Amino acid sequence: MRYAVGVDLGGTNLRVAAVREDGEMLRQVRCGTQVERGRDAVIDEMAAAVRQLADEVSAAGTLAGVGIGVAGILDAHNGTVREAPNLPGWEEYPVRAEIERRLGSPVVLENDANAAAAGEAWLGAARGAGSMAMITLGTGVGGGIVLGGRIWPGSRGMAGEFGHVVIFPEGPRCNCGNRGCVEQYASASAVVRAAREWAARGEAAAIAREIERRGAEFSAKNIYELAAAGDGPSREIFRRAGETLGILLADLVNVLNLEVYVIGGGMAGAWEMFAPAMFAELRTRSFVYKATAPADAEEALRGETSPEARRAAAPATAVVRAQLGPDAGLIGAARLAMQAEK
Amino acid sequence: MRYAVGVDLGGTNLRVAAVREDGEMLRQVRCGTQVERGRDAVIDEMAAAVRQLADEVSAAGTLAGVGIGVAGILDAHNGTVREAPNLPGWEEYPVRAEIERRLGSPVVLENDANAAAAGEAWLGAARGAGSMAMITLGTGVGGGIVLGGRIWPGSRGMAGEFGHVVIFPEGPRCNCGNRGCVEQYASASAVVRAAREWAARGEAAAIAREIERRGAEFSAKNIYELAAAGDGPSREIFRRAGETLGILLADLVNVLNLEVYVIGGGMAGAWEMFAPAMFAELRTRSFVYKATAPADAEEALRGETSPEARRAAAPATAVVRAQLGPDAGLIGAARLAMQAEK
Repeated sequence: MRYAVGVDLGGTNLRVAAVREDGEMLRQVRCGTQVERGRDAVIDEMAAAVRQLADEVSAAGTLAGVGIGVAGILDAHNGTVREAPNLPGWEEYPVRAEIERRLGSPVVLENDANAAAAGEAWLGAARGAGSMAMITLGTGVGGGIVLGGRIWPGSRGMAGEFGHVVIFPEGPRCNCGNRGCVEQYASASAVVRAAREWAARGEAAAIAREIERRGAEFSAKNIYELAAAGDGPSREIFRRAGETLGILLADLVNVLNLEVYVIGGGMAGAWEMFAPAMFAELRTRSFVYKATAPADAEEALRGETSPEARRAAAPATAVVRAQLGPDAGLIGAARLAMQAEK
Repeated sequence: MRYAVGVDLGGTNLRVAAVREDGEMLRQVRCGTQVERGRDAVIDEMAAAVRQLADEVSAAGTLAGVGIGVAGILDAHNGTVREAPNLPGWEEYPVRAEIERRLGSPVVLENDANAAAAGEAWLGAARGAGSMAMITLGTGVGGGIVLGGRIWPGSRGMAGEFGHVVIFPEGPRCNCGNRGCVEQYASASAVVRAAREWAARGEAAAIAREIERRGAEFSAKNIYELAAAGDGPSREIFRRAGETLGILLADLVNVLNLEVYVIGGGMAGAWEMFAPAMFAELRTRSFVYKATAPADAEEALRGETSPEARRAAAPATAVVRAQLGPDAGLIGAARLAMQAEK
């Protein structure tokens, strides 16, 4: 049987996995990425890790190819990195060709959010769906679209930038130049910023104490814990994130009419804090959603993430939590390598 | 050579055209649709018109099929009409099967906005582009998406509902249940409503005079003429429509990253009144647009609609006016029939 190697090349971790074409995860390793040692050292390390993994699983079948997920804007066509905040100095360098040369295997380079979408579409929460989009809620907000089993990369590999869809046209300015983007409300950094603002206004004593206690370590997870314990301002912050996601989803449903929308990334762990507001907005704002996701199907599905639950509830449009956690990108990168080889 | 027949089935007109597979328009006819005579009479009339047209052009080649564009929500899979405001009583009726039976030719049923997108993608402003979307500004706002030469219909045939993308979450309520949709600002009816509101507030003397003079005939065209003559409130109404379209386009560019976005429909005639605000918003709000449409390419293209001008200006993302006018839907319907036959 064929297998492929998926790589998740983050700013601090390099994760590599061998996945068989039937979806069986053969082996997975993780090493720290020493980005500061420079591009060539990272590429050497990555090539060595892939080679070693391929050796270890070589009895399992033939290596179909290697897929690499990278946070940033890529030129998938040329196999180069256009802009990758975590990988300074990688721009305009023929990454794909260089790794192909070292490994002697075909290499696919893909944006990490697209890779995660491909993973959830293949083996995760959207398994069996003909079309899906994944919204990844992390430090920023990214996304990917899969149509007929294939990533829709866009004409320049830049599709799926859900984090920069406009929600409140007069909202806070984003680094992207826009105002009131999804990322300004529904990312982990937006949640932390909102909490600091509540505290600074003197309106959120519990948050202020938590900031005091955690110092620089204060994170979205702490706010989630406060919200779970019933803190009003913390709950309001997640409600706002949910409202934002509901508006984004309404737009995506009305524009794309896909079968499944998967919410993933670290922030998805706060699902029960933002999902009620998200579904409420989505249901009011998208007649396509209303027509294709009966309220009882939504109710049956709420909180359930498995494709089996989705099929049992049978909505034509489903919004569900991601299932593969941090492995989605790895698995998806392997999948993309396998698809490219065919 | 093969040809197909395209039908544009509106509430007041039935238009039928025979188009050859090389894009040559062979013949076109128009008849009044007497919707009030009932569904069966309209279907009879449509079948007769198609048959007659096919007879007239029979020397030109083989009839590949018939495509019918209908305003409304269709179930393309079953060939039925789900909701068509102009065609009362057509719901849940096997329109496609019925027409196929009468004509003995394969029939494709498609939403009129999708048909128009297919037309502009084939022979109009997006000719030669690998991917495009068309935004149709009429009484309402519709749209269609073409990826790799094919309509993306969505999983339930409901994709491309650009008119109901949220622009201002607290804006006026729309019939779709949402608030502040595109349709509330950039449709012909929204423009007329805004003008009436300006006049009612006593802030727009010229508009008030025009309403007085035109009575029930007062239309978006009158407001366009006032704007063209320099009337401030009228210009502001189109500026607002342009701002809305710019935000919509920023969302679409960030989500889909297509090559060409075509603005069509009756309101597109007011292009020079809304385009400046539209491009200004789009450029600020979409980093994908900024990265793929250099300002000088945009400038070179502004007002130009031809694919040749687009290629000469060479932006990777282009926003242009439609080229085929009211024929887009007819031509696209014929195209879809031809594609289905292959």
